[in-house]
Amino acid sequence: MKKRILTGDTPTGKLHLGHFVGTLQNRVKLQDEYETYIILADLHALTTLSKDPYKISQYTLEVAIDNLAVGLNPDKSHIFVESLVPEIYELAAIFSMYVTYGRVMRNPTIKDEITMKELGNTYSLGFINYPIYQAADILCVKANLVPVGKDQVAHLEQTREIARDINRVTNSEIFPIPEVLVGQHGKLPGLDGKAKMSKSLGNAIFLSDSSEEVKKKVMRMYTDPTRIRATDPGHIEGNAVFTYHDVFNPNKDEVADMKQAYEHGKISDVAVKEKLYQVLETFLSPIRERRIKLEKDKGKIREIIIEGSKKAREESQKTLLEVKEKIGLSIV
Amino acid sequence: MKKRILTGDTPTGKLHLGHFVGTLQNRVKLQDEYETYIILADLHALTTLSKDPYKISQYTLEVAIDNLAVGLNPDKSHIFVESLVPEIYELAAIFSMYVTYGRVMRNPTIKDEITMKELGNTYSLGFINYPIYQAADILCVKANLVPVGKDQVAHLEQTREIARDINRVTNSEIFPIPEVLVGQHGKLPGLDGKAKMSKSLGNAIFLSDSSEEVKKKVMRMYTDPTRIRATDPGHIEGNAVFTYHDVFNPNKDEVADMKQAYEHGKISDVAVKEKLYQVLETFLSPIRERRIKLEKDKGKIREIIIEGSKKAREESQKTLLEVKEKIGLSIV
Repeated sequence: MKKRILTGDTPTGKLHLGHFVGTLQNRVKLQDEYETYIILADLHALTTLSKDPYKISQYTLEVAIDNLAVGLNPDKSHIFVESLVPEIYELAAIFSMYVTYGRVMRNPTIKDEITMKELGNTYSLGFINYPIYQAADILCVKANLVPVGKDQVAHLEQTREIARDINRVTNSEIFPIPEVLVGQHGKLPGLDGKAKMSKSLGNAIFLSDSSEEVKKKVMRMYTDPTRIRATDPGHIEGNAVFTYHDVFNPNKDEVADMKQAYEHGKISDVAVKEKLYQVLETFLSPIRERRIKLEKDKGKIREIIIEGSKKAREESQKTLLEVKEKIGLSIV
Repeated sequence: MKKRILTGDTPTGKLHLGHFVGTLQNRVKLQDEYETYIILADLHALTTLSKDPYKISQYTLEVAIDNLAVGLNPDKSHIFVESLVPEIYELAAIFSMYVTYGRVMRNPTIKDEITMKELGNTYSLGFINYPIYQAADILCVKANLVPVGKDQVAHLEQTREIARDINRVTNSEIFPIPEVLVGQHGKLPGLDGKAKMSKSLGNAIFLSDSSEEVKKKVMRMYTDPTRIRATDPGHIEGNAVFTYHDVFNPNKDEVADMKQAYEHGKISDVAVKEKLYQVLETFLSPIRERRIKLEKDKGKIREIIIEGSKKAREESQKTLLEVKEKIGLSIV
């Protein structure tokens, strides 16, 4: 039997280059080797969109399209919607009995978000339940491998703990202990040079951005603030334009040459940006084309999602029943 | 259409006199007037029994039997098991996005339990999710009235808030705002005179206790620690034996006479306890007899639960679909 991958996205907006680097690339690469499940965690999206919940179904479709546009093949990968697999919520309810509040609050990703968004203790229970739901997302299909962005590694550690705890309390091997796979380039910085490309920080290039949008965004990118003129020696480190070149420019010699020229004040910011724009266009235009084609047939996208959800649900029902029987919850 | 009641029990042990006073009595009294749903919240039981989950299914049956033995009629009341109505967990997941951690921690029942059990922050997420699950238990069948013990009133306030929030965010009247009904005698003190009869404090008379057990427990009851001899004047206030007489002895004149005699040192502790034992026996023996009959046919109990769960599930599916559609979560 093929080993399984579970990964996915919270549909709070369209996907961007950061998602590609963090996880999409790995999904596409591994879909032949693994049985792949891609979750669209629509209910998670409520942590961000609780005031505008009607937006979620639209984003769910968009994110499905993004996944298909980068090369996920629905014949190989099951793309499914969390709320169409209600077993996940029951599984999460069971898991929540085995995770302490103190443990969740030691999760650095949770801590960072609370600090970053200045939440105090106004965060919702849904927000701190997030790692539990994510564990249920992953374990409902008994995934062996989870390709994720770097910021999700702490959550995965929680999933692994839960899998071990449930195995121990049921004295069985219900769950594999899933491995985590982080994208080869780690985190992609934002256009503003900040640590992370993020739609909520407004520093992202989306997979669905038009050629004009990409150009505008690249030309405004953060480079080296100490460099006033093109003839000043420039810095490569912390310079997002070069980080993007490293990731997306397949011509490594060209990148090396540009870096050297930049450090010696022999190439302008505009020139390296122009080059980057071309590189990104080469990368994005086939995705954009597939996207346009896919968008024309939303009925087909819905079908793909319903099929994927049916498959994920079958597996989840089996898993839940097994957990309930082993745990002794079932009275019938 | 009849209005609805939802109430129930967490099957972490058999029911006792405190449950009867707090809620069972009201359940029985109101089952003709209201369409009644009795939930056996088996998954909640995991907050207490996470290390011994296999005990829960046994307790679930016992608690169903307790409910039937006190007079709940399965032709009028739907007795159901939480984990057979998985829509509850999905509903709870949605609700959890609308309740802050800070709000839950202001719940006095949660605060008291954390202090009483010295939990620090080792309580599980399931434990603080409790009021959310309870809201889902109640709202899944759109209950109008919830007969509960006094310690549950704070949770009910949370349920009412959630109902209002979801109505507001969906701009609709999906949920009635459920009213709470506390038993006429409030809380029954424990045999040890402590504020609350509770199985975890070991100070309870169970509905299923044998005549000998009841006698033994009554004779050991806490009375007036300042009274050494039967001729000493005794105190009525805080004297659990008299509180029980007030609640269970239908002969109010006899109770008044005994109180007077007690205060004047004219009746012994033993005599008032003997009397209480007889009163409780009159009360408990028909329950005990029905219990014994019911216990002989566990297949029948299972049938009742399955039927009740089917009915509760139908209603919950309708409710969940309505919430998801109004909230805009559904993509299909």
